[in-house]
Amino acid sequence: MPPLLDASASEAVAPCCPPLTERPFTAEEAETAARMFKALGDPVRLRLFSAVASHKGGEACVCDISDVGVSQPTVSHHLKKLKEAGLLTSERRGTWVYYRVEPSVLAAMGRLLTLTPAAA
Amino acid sequence: MPPLLDASASEAVAPCCPPLTERPFTAEEAETAARMFKALGDPVRLRLFSAVASHKGGEACVCDISDVGVSQPTVSHHLKKLKEAGLLTSERRGTWVYYRVEPSVLAAMGRLLTLTPAAA
Repeated sequence: MPPLLDASASEAVAPCCPPLTERPFTAEEAETAARMFKALGDPVRLRLFSAVASHKGGEACVCDISDVGVSQPTVSHHLKKLKEAGLLTSERRGTWVYYRVEPSVLAAMGRLLTLTPAAA
Repeated sequence: MPPLLDASASEAVAPCCPPLTERPFTAEEAETAARMFKALGDPVRLRLFSAVASHKGGEACVCDISDVGVSQPTVSHHLKKLKEAGLLTSERRGTWVYYRVEPSVLAAMGRLLTLTPAAA
């Protein structure tokens, strides 16, 4: 499945999709964007995502965000899902894996929700 | 379940949630926001949503958006789901029900994805 961002040009990233209000999405665009929305469509996953996103330095390990009321294996499971959806990146440092929000992906999702004149 | 927007003060709407990068979401905030993301987490539903959102005048009936490759009852089913999630409003005019994007809800979702200094 194609990523939301085309990172083939190394640093330069191109959002997959226009604003939702600009024109009807193609099937391929919808597949890509729906995958990201779906990943945030679970309350526990969304809480964990905001816990990572708002953590000092923009990154967190499982050890930092254990106060969501689910077990550590469940936290790890959800973080892995968010990573698979391209919303988080991860890096192992010593005992822990640190997760970080991918700011360009957040920005691309935000762009999808931009209002264009057609919807005004 | 609480709406994403508090519309109790008639015209003035207050977004349910801060940006995802500002602080960890509470359970209640996550429930509300996840419901909206989940509604957009299906490719067919996302295509229909963008078809409505980008249609002339910002509204469309089932008769306008039949080119997504699913049956008309399926289109109606998905539009109803989007309405239940608070992303669309509807109005019957004659034979057809017209669906319209709720711009304030789109804006509130966009705000969730705003980057704050913590994530930079």
